This record gives sequence, structure tokens and C-alpha cells, in this order.
Amino acid sequence: MIGVHIEDGEVSVRKARRPRRKRGEALIRLRVGGICNTDLELQRGYYGFAGRPGHEFAGEVVSAGDPAWVGRRVVGEINRACGKCDWCKRGLGRHCPHRTVLGIAGHPGAFAGYLTLPVENLHRIPASVPDEEAVFAEPIAAACEILDQVRIPKGVPVAVLGDGKLGLLVGQVLAAHGADVRQFGRHRANLAIAEAAGAKVEIVGRETPAAKFDWVVDATGSKEGLGAAIRMTRPRGVLVLKSTVHGKAAIDAARVVVDEITLVGSRCGRFVPALRLLKQGRLRLREMIDSRFPLPEAPRAFRRASKRGVLKVLLEAA
Amino acid sequence: MIGVHIEDGEVSVRKARRPRRKRGEALIRLRVGGICNTDLELQRGYYGFAGRPGHEFAGEVVSAGDPAWVGRRVVGEINRACGKCDWCKRGLGRHCPHRTVLGIAGHPGAFAGYLTLPVENLHRIPASVPDEEAVFAEPIAAACEILDQVRIPKGVPVAVLGDGKLGLLVGQVLAAHGADVRQFGRHRANLAIAEAAGAKVEIVGRETPAAKFDWVVDATGSKEGLGAAIRMTRPRGVLVLKSTVHGKAAIDAARVVVDEITLVGSRCGRFVPALRLLKQGRLRLREMIDSRFPLPEAPRAFRRASKRGVLKVLLEAA
Repeated sequence: MIGVHIEDGEVSVRKARRPRRKRGEALIRLRVGGICNTDLELQRGYYGFAGRPGHEFAGEVVSAGDPAWVGRRVVGEINRACGKCDWCKRGLGRHCPHRTVLGIAGHPGAFAGYLTLPVENLHRIPASVPDEEAVFAEPIAAACEILDQVRIPKGVPVAVLGDGKLGLLVGQVLAAHGADVRQFGRHRANLAIAEAAGAKVEIVGRETPAAKFDWVVDATGSKEGLGAAIRMTRPRGVLVLKSTVHGKAAIDAARVVVDEITLVGSRCGRFVPALRLLKQGRLRLREMIDSRFPLPEAPRAFRRASKRGVLKVLLEAA
Repeated sequence: MIGVHIEDGEVSVRKARRPRRKRGEALIRLRVGGICNTDLELQRGYYGFAGRPGHEFAGEVVSAGDPAWVGRRVVGEINRACGKCDWCKRGLGRHCPHRTVLGIAGHPGAFAGYLTLPVENLHRIPASVPDEEAVFAEPIAAACEILDQVRIPKGVPVAVLGDGKLGLLVGQVLAAHGADVRQFGRHRANLAIAEAAGAKVEIVGRETPAAKFDWVVDATGSKEGLGAAIRMTRPRGVLVLKSTVHGKAAIDAARVVVDEITLVGSRCGRFVPALRLLKQGRLRLREMIDSRFPLPEAPRAFRRASKRGVLKVLLEAA
């Protein structure tokens, strides 16, 4: 098989050995992979990563201990937890300190002919959901995580900063939840998708509205975005942080204290609510696909994905 | 009468006219005032302050519309809200955008022979509580605010960073609530007070324990404290920010996101729970008094209060 490899800032495609599944794992043939901003950060050398990336995928089980899985189209949760620690016992394997993470830390990723994952990480893709939508399950779950963490009343205005891949999914998930989404971004074409999904949209100039929203989500992916998001939050408001920006971000901590703002860090989420939304067909996902590349053209695909304002770039198995 | 005056970094004592109470206000004679770190920040020129400081006080009502107040010993809430806006209607006059704040913004402070405050801001001091303890009502209320904002289960370990005035009060209030307080600081004498109040104490070296606590309060008053507090917080933990440090603080936002930490800004609080604690006599306050100065010696008192590790400095009326 072939596998994508990242090392020293370079993306290459190599011949590789098909991985062997361990007990409790499934061997999965890749159908479609999605390039995420985290993959681009891995390429830039953050987290000291070298190896095979890829954590957004739709695939088909070719081998598993339980034959009922074989032939199933699946997506998979990316955190491979120990199953034994207190975190795992609380159902929070996503925070297991012993975890490996598919394509990010300690577990070879999905951008290859085949990948392995524990069977308990897998979810069947509903028959009505095509691969090119199912591949969004992981980032949709990350957007759904917000609703697992904070209770946003239906109908209230929520400012979503950022009109990139994650920002648009966050906006759509919150709109499906019933929030009055105000999406702020820099790319007219991207904001048009948010608008079609029911959000009020605004091109961000130098100034963003100050202290206007009780609920704000920062999905800008930039350090400056966090500062702008704090400025937009009303006293006693809640700001959800979805951007994993590398390095230190300077914040006006006195403003956070004086106005008693709550900041909530938010990362991966459960796949169940994401698959429910996928099955309901309530998200505008195809419009978010910028381009598709065959897996062997992964280097070109990564170059395309790293351009400003470009939405989802997919890698397709031959 | 005399009044303390801050301007261009200088503390002076001036002759001043006794303030006139407006309708709905009480005229209050100062008995004891307490110097807070915010007063020292005002002296340093933060917030562009010039005028009469003082927001921690115990006084006696000498004149009010309702004669029942006259002669009463009182403390007073420091935010003077409009009473009409949505914040005020929700009982959150502390966030009223039209508010003035005693001795901080738009309302002359308590460090003078007399001050005025709206009668609705006043609380009678229980007969069993001496002035020198009642003067702590405002910072105790600020510590109690934490318990109004987040639900800390009884018995759980809570790390309190900082052994200054506010840090010690936060530790004592949380201990009275039933938390297992771990107080981290740099001053043995101050930590001894925390220890006597039931906390486990630790002198902070270069390293603080990493990712150890589900509940952390930063009361260090320093930018570096915030970073240390984030490092000490476990995944999914809650970090309460009590330090109003001027300027930008650099935080590891990726850590906050990846570990899904919640940061809660926390400022002033309600006086009712503070007065309850004062009446119960459950806090070690007299040990926190560093020194007492007559009001005319306010400049010396401010110099003393600005020394590292010095706890509460009181100003006493003649």
C-alpha cells in the first residue's frame, strides 16, 4: 500500500507495509480522508511530529475480530484510550493521559491505503450518508462538543468568529441547535455558506463589535482572534475557545476578571450527535468541499489546503 | 474634614469639603478603612485615576432619609448602579454599564472624614463584629463571589495560588465552605495564617505541580501567576481568576483548548454571605492586619501597604 509521510515540513507519499491489526482492532481500508488544520500544523513541525498524518476519514472494515464489522463503512473516534484509568472510567477517554491519537500522537494516521483502530472507536456510517459527508464526522463532533460543555439557550445570539472549516461547522451545528448564529469572517465565499445555512454574516474589518454577545465562539485559528473574541463578549458572557493555536496568546486578563467572563476550552467531541446530524442531512457539507485529490497526490492536496480561505480538501483512495 | 488624594503617583492628605448626600444616599462617618491592592494600582496610575481612593470601610451613618439608619455602624457595597438597566433588573448592578464605583470610578472614596453611598448599598454591621473585622467585608464578598459562580463540591482539593490579602481570604472562605484548600505562596508568615485556618500550605519554588487540581484559584496578582495556575489545572478543570492584573497576560491557549480547561473571571461579590461569615467569626482576620495608621498618615500607610508580603494596612479615623 502507499502512505502519506510528514517529516521536516515535507509531505511525501511512500510505499509502506499494510498495518497489522492487534486484538480488539479493526483493519480499515481508506475510502476518503479530509485534511484538517491540525494536519497543516503537524507539517509545520508543531508537536515535533514525524510520521503518517490523517484523523478525518471514512473507510471500510476489511478485517476485525467480530465478523459483523467486515464490509461496513465506518468513521472512527481518534483518541485511543487505555480504558483503565479514571478518565476512561468516566467516559472521558478523550482526556486519558495514556492515550494515543490517530494521525497525531503515537498511532499511524488514516492517510494511507489502510489504517487500524480499536473496534470500540468505530461507528457505522448511515446508508444515506455518502463518504464525502461522513468524512466530516470528526470535525462535526468537535463542533458538537460545545453543546456538551455549555448550555446555550435556543434562540439566543451566538457570535462565531472565523469562517474556516471549523468555524463554518460550528456555526451550522449551533444553528441546527436553534441558536441565532452571527458568523464573522474574512472570506465572502465562505460566509455565503454560513448565510445559506441560516446565519447572519459579517465581514470583519479592523473593529469587531465590543461587549455585544453573551455567547461567543472563537474558531479563527489565530492568536489575534482570541483577543477579538474577548472584546466581543459581554460581562458575565461565555467564550468558547476552539482554536488550538500554537504558542502563547496575549489576553486582557483584567477584562476577563472585571467583566467576569468565562472561557471554555473545547476540543474533540463524541461522534454520536455528529452522526445524528449527518443522518438528518441538516448540514451544508458538499459546499464546503474545495477540491479532491487522489491519495498519491497528497503533497499537492496539502499545498492546496494550506492556502488562506480554502475549505475542505479531500484525499480519495484509488 | 480631611481626605486622601491620589494624583500622579502621589498620595497626599488634603482639607476637603464634607460631601453632601443626595436623595436616597446616606452620609457616613469613616471609622476604619482598609488599603487594597487596587488602591495601590490606582496610585500607580492605572485606570487614569486621580481623586479620593478607598472602597473598604466600616463607618457610622450620620444622616439619611430614613432616620432608622442614623447611628448605625455600616459597611457598603461599592458599585453604585443605575437601577434601571437590564443588568440592574437581573440583580447584577455590579455589572451595570452606567455604574460608578466607590473610590475607583466616578464616586469619591472612603478614605476621608466622611463619604456618601446610596442607602440600598448599606449593610448593618452585626454587633458582635468589631470595625477592624467588618472592614474586610468587601474583599470577603469578593472571595465569596467564587461560590456564587461555580459549584465546588465539599471536600475536594482546591489549589489557591497567592498568599496575599485576597489569596488568604479566598483560602479561608473556601475552607469555611468545606473545600480541602492547598494554599501556595511565597511568604512563610502569611502561609502560617492559612495553615492555622486549616489549609495545607506550600512555599512555591520554581516549579508548581502540573495538571494536579480540578479546582484552582489564581489570586497571585501577577501575570506569571496566571500561567502557573493554568499549568496546575487538570484536564476539564476549572480555574477561577481573581487577579485584576493590568496589561496583557500571555497564556498557553492551546493547553486550555486541548485540556478543555474552563477559566472563570471573578470580581466583586454580594455582601450578605460575607457578613454571615463575619458574624459566625469563622475567619482569621485580626492576624491579617499588618498595621494601623491614623487617617492623616495615609501616605505612610500606602508606603507600608506597597511592600511585598505585607497584609492588611488599616486607616483609622481620629
